[in-house]
Amino acid sequence: MLDADREVRDLGPMWKTTICTRRWTLLATSLLLVAATNPARGGESLASWRDTDSKKQIMEFVERVTTPGSSAYVEPAERIAVFDNDGTLWAEQPIYFQLQFALDRLKALAPEHPEWAKSPVLAAALADDLPAVLAAGNRGILEVIMASHTGNTTQEFEAAVAAWIDSANHPRFERPYVELVYQPMLELLDYLRQNDFRVFIVSGGGIDFVRVFSPAVYGIPPERVVGSTVKTRFEMREDGPVLVRLPELDFLDDKEGKPVAIGRYIGRRPIAAFGNSDGDLQMLQWTAAGDGPSLAVLVHHTDAEREWAYDRESKIGRLDAALDEAEKRGWTLIDMKRDWTTVFKDE
Amino acid sequence: MLDADREVRDLGPMWKTTICTRRWTLLATSLLLVAATNPARGGESLASWRDTDSKKQIMEFVERVTTPGSSAYVEPAERIAVFDNDGTLWAEQPIYFQLQFALDRLKALAPEHPEWAKSPVLAAALADDLPAVLAAGNRGILEVIMASHTGNTTQEFEAAVAAWIDSANHPRFERPYVELVYQPMLELLDYLRQNDFRVFIVSGGGIDFVRVFSPAVYGIPPERVVGSTVKTRFEMREDGPVLVRLPELDFLDDKEGKPVAIGRYIGRRPIAAFGNSDGDLQMLQWTAAGDGPSLAVLVHHTDAEREWAYDRESKIGRLDAALDEAEKRGWTLIDMKRDWTTVFKDE
Repeated sequence: MLDADREVRDLGPMWKTTICTRRWTLLATSLLLVAATNPARGGESLASWRDTDSKKQIMEFVERVTTPGSSAYVEPAERIAVFDNDGTLWAEQPIYFQLQFALDRLKALAPEHPEWAKSPVLAAALADDLPAVLAAGNRGILEVIMASHTGNTTQEFEAAVAAWIDSANHPRFERPYVELVYQPMLELLDYLRQNDFRVFIVSGGGIDFVRVFSPAVYGIPPERVVGSTVKTRFEMREDGPVLVRLPELDFLDDKEGKPVAIGRYIGRRPIAAFGNSDGDLQMLQWTAAGDGPSLAVLVHHTDAEREWAYDRESKIGRLDAALDEAEKRGWTLIDMKRDWTTVFKDE
Repeated sequence: MLDADREVRDLGPMWKTTICTRRWTLLATSLLLVAATNPARGGESLASWRDTDSKKQIMEFVERVTTPGSSAYVEPAERIAVFDNDGTLWAEQPIYFQLQFALDRLKALAPEHPEWAKSPVLAAALADDLPAVLAAGNRGILEVIMASHTGNTTQEFEAAVAAWIDSANHPRFERPYVELVYQPMLELLDYLRQNDFRVFIVSGGGIDFVRVFSPAVYGIPPERVVGSTVKTRFEMREDGPVLVRLPELDFLDDKEGKPVAIGRYIGRRPIAAFGNSDGDLQMLQWTAAGDGPSLAVLVHHTDAEREWAYDRESKIGRLDAALDEAEKRGWTLIDMKRDWTTVFKDE
């Protein structure tokens, strides 16, 4: 919707002085034809997908729900698609990118926080001893996140994320993190939007982290990003009101939390869900349990050469119970090595 | 955006068999011209507004932010408008409509809950002794809300709200509650959408209550409704997963909570905010404190004959501190009696 709308809007100034010549009417007609052709359109935009089962299953689903008169037809208002972010839209190895941001920011802030030296977890993080941080489990990660992600205003935090996104490079690929988004998934987002789906991110990562780059990178506006949150407080200061980020977890958008967050933020059950790990299992179950047609898809990381190969034993993005469930329920499995001609954007 | 998009989509089947004749190209051209005319369009749709200051201030603001090249121009992506619901989009007297739903539902459920007789507040509610409920303050109202709004699944709750909306009548006007929405505000929602605003409700009421009727009544989809929430839990049952509503307040979307919820759900600062009570003060302050142009508007209930007249002393929808702030800051005040030719829809 946004895309179609943007096409029309961008023509605004041109039309202001237009006399309706043959050239303009042809342009207008072709634009409307592109916008109004039914059923499913834009399949050719899935250019980085090989013609394997996963592509066929996705396209067949989209064709079924967009064919008027079909028993599987779904009104555009109900065409909600949800995507996990880490490992589904962009890479997540060797550690979640947001955790790298947290570690980098921790170091940048450390001089102002001598008290951090007293915490074994924070001291380990500052000494680049990541195994010691991870050995403390979720509690350790949470401590690093809270120290690095809170205590400032929402505006200050967004600026810090934006600066990191602009400057940091991935250790293996030596490219900015936002270039490690999956080209085939960008095409899939476009394909779904062309077919009047409303696309949401439902991420275990921080909502305010993902929102900084999601409009430019995915074409997904902030209000369509759902994720984990810390509590914030409204404060009236001398130079105006601010929202202060508090060191208290508000909501963890993972596992059982994902359907809960979908209910809270979206308020409708999705008809399509895309994930890659056990953290997405309940989101896929919730989507697949709807009354009408549904599509549940897992990205399976099978390409050690171009990306990474991991599933049941991985510390990051473990795919175990959800893989069993996918086999049992006949969910769509994307085999990265087999199904994608290109992995990353602009390769 | 949704509206423009819908126009195009509805043409779908027609275009399937189209040969590009002169008639079609004319239609296509005129549609595009309507969609692309800039600046501000649709002012004539504010048909129930008299030509007073409040209408002029709203239209001038919309014209300024939609005029390309103007120093006050705002990109469509940033055109976020937020509306309170109770007292701003629909009436709220003699008690909040959702509280009436709670009281009605409490009575319907009472036979299954003999233990409610032991609670002074619930016993009072069941005996129609509303003053006793209100005398217990927010704690009393919360107890009534929790008893009547939780313990079931989200689907069951939505069905209960829908059934009440379809059957209950307002005591004074003897009309369904959803007919007590303000016609001028419906026109305003349309006007803003015609000018590429994204319109959100930010209500002190329950998010899952408002979402049941907001698509049909306001043209606002569930994901653009923000409100108060109870906690929910994902549960896998024999016949599939459900979300269970728990008797625990998750978030109260009122006063300082409104900017917090805007940050959480919308993730961008609005440029226009509409409210009617002290519960909206911080939302208007937050909106007005943005870097660019902004519009802060209060609906002032001044019409005892057609609706109600109340402000500083009212128990419901008290407008006191926000009225002072509006005068101090030069915010726009809608004087219901003076500014509106019609109050309710279909009058």
